[in-house]
Amino acid sequence: MASSGNGRRRPTLEQVAERAGVSRATVSRVVNGQTTVAEHLRKAVEEAASDMGYVPHAAARSLVTQRTDSVALIVPEAPTRVFSDDQFFPGVIRGVAAELDAAGKLLVLMTTGSAEGRDRVERYAVGGHVDGVMFASLHDADPLPELIVRRGVPVVVNGMLPHSTVPYIDVDHVGGVRKAVEYLLARGRTRIATVAGPQDMVAGRGRLAGYRAALAAADRRAIVAVGDFTAQSGLDAMRQLLSDEPDLDAVFAASDLMAHGALIALREAGRRVPEDVAVVGFDDIAMASYSEPPLTTVRQPITDIGRTLALHMLALLAGEPVQRETILPTELVQRESA
Amino acid sequence: MASSGNGRRRPTLEQVAERAGVSRATVSRVVNGQTTVAEHLRKAVEEAASDMGYVPHAAARSLVTQRTDSVALIVPEAPTRVFSDDQFFPGVIRGVAAELDAAGKLLVLMTTGSAEGRDRVERYAVGGHVDGVMFASLHDADPLPELIVRRGVPVVVNGMLPHSTVPYIDVDHVGGVRKAVEYLLARGRTRIATVAGPQDMVAGRGRLAGYRAALAAADRRAIVAVGDFTAQSGLDAMRQLLSDEPDLDAVFAASDLMAHGALIALREAGRRVPEDVAVVGFDDIAMASYSEPPLTTVRQPITDIGRTLALHMLALLAGEPVQRETILPTELVQRESA
Repeated sequence: MASSGNGRRRPTLEQVAERAGVSRATVSRVVNGQTTVAEHLRKAVEEAASDMGYVPHAAARSLVTQRTDSVALIVPEAPTRVFSDDQFFPGVIRGVAAELDAAGKLLVLMTTGSAEGRDRVERYAVGGHVDGVMFASLHDADPLPELIVRRGVPVVVNGMLPHSTVPYIDVDHVGGVRKAVEYLLARGRTRIATVAGPQDMVAGRGRLAGYRAALAAADRRAIVAVGDFTAQSGLDAMRQLLSDEPDLDAVFAASDLMAHGALIALREAGRRVPEDVAVVGFDDIAMASYSEPPLTTVRQPITDIGRTLALHMLALLAGEPVQRETILPTELVQRESA
Repeated sequence: MASSGNGRRRPTLEQVAERAGVSRATVSRVVNGQTTVAEHLRKAVEEAASDMGYVPHAAARSLVTQRTDSVALIVPEAPTRVFSDDQFFPGVIRGVAAELDAAGKLLVLMTTGSAEGRDRVERYAVGGHVDGVMFASLHDADPLPELIVRRGVPVVVNGMLPHSTVPYIDVDHVGGVRKAVEYLLARGRTRIATVAGPQDMVAGRGRLAGYRAALAAADRRAIVAVGDFTAQSGLDAMRQLLSDEPDLDAVFAASDLMAHGALIALREAGRRVPEDVAVVGFDDIAMASYSEPPLTTVRQPITDIGRTLALHMLALLAGEPVQRETILPTELVQRESA
């Protein structure tokens, strides 16, 4: 993915059109990302633009826009969720802000809670208002990263992105959760349930896979409920688990907020933590150390995710290569809940 | 303050230049806000632009930019503060987001923690990337609202803005705090200290004024330490107050976060709350109801501040009049700390 503004002379639409042997209108339609252009015309335009030293959409963008020295961070969740008791996104934002600030770039933050919100963010992101776009997390079905990168705007995401060339940061979900479940097994727990995360996110699937792998290796049965990473969903899922499997003696919750909800459900049900039921979370947000009892959890380096997103974006903007995949480590932090 | 894009035909730089009897370059310098233009030339340009139905800078802006259907919310604090345990700004953001979303506008968020950060935000805000700018709070010395409005971009702020025509929202600081201190007096407290907020902010000064007014009316002495609205500053200030005035029996903290810090300092010092020392906060953020003990506090309608900021901005963008001052009510919420 080439970034625009690398100092080379930029071709005009007319020059690209002449080289491609097509009309200026066709070039315009291609560079505006319209999908109704005949395949052979689109190819001709892209080849001409490429010969002239540009990825076509980046070329188009550089024709009409200038550097803004600002970068967008998109949080693809509703603002009521992002700006409430969540502590994951604020940590990512702090990391991004620190690196962009040091580099003299402006951070502009946006959320996309709805389809309309996503359309607005897309129009803004490809409208020349920012030099690049970072995603603080990702749902599989979200077409936005790909739509933006096709318009020539550099993109970096948190969360693995299959079938794409977009560089991404992620953490070792499977390894971290395996360690957590093995820890519970080593402590003699035998009926270990999980409150899994959303299964349309790599973070949700990877953590469930780590849980299943560790139990399978120990020849134990999986006991699964699914939440959406919020505290309320952890409360609901834990109630469900207690109803499904009253004898459970441990639970791995795929986020600290869900673990927090699980602690409330366990207290309601008169179960002591960790005596009756051991609880392990995932994230190590600030709440983990001041919950009652303090939470044993799989730590992911939240601020470092933000810093890495920003550093990779700055590299792309400087025209430097960035590795497609960066996996940050996770580690088990032992406190009192397990 | 006129908003651009109201559907009237926009004059070109040449048309303004012809009418003013000056060169196009002079018009360009005036509309770009350059201060080196001779006064009589600047006046001629402004009059011509005004005759043609535009405030000059707004006119310039409308010549070079188009509506973006996005509005900026600037939080004039460091991101490490905004995105941590603070719950005031997230509440304002939620309110703003709800109204903008309903109106089909994109919210873009920015923080300005440093002078460099403020410069970047200014360039972005007047660069045609947003249709208007809201401020989530305000320090007196901050020139940014005035700089932005002078470039023809509509501005609405939270916090009284003296010597300006910018519309602002604020809450009844003085009245709310008076009620809180009168409540403490009515409960028989005699040595009532305060952890005041920053004195370069209307919120800090107004709450201190309310405290002083209530004590003066009861012929009691003021006992004052000053923080910056953060929990850490409340902890430090409370330690200072206990050292200055060991016999104090109540404290009004000008933010819930500072009250939270004060609770920690009182616990350290072996004082029981409310038996030995009654504590009252200000804000009624979520933390107020789950602190130990739950906090008696002056409630300000945080989400409504955000909603009102957004509604007034939407009115400005639609060319509708907005009142210069809007004061929202405050009320005392009684819990267990006083």
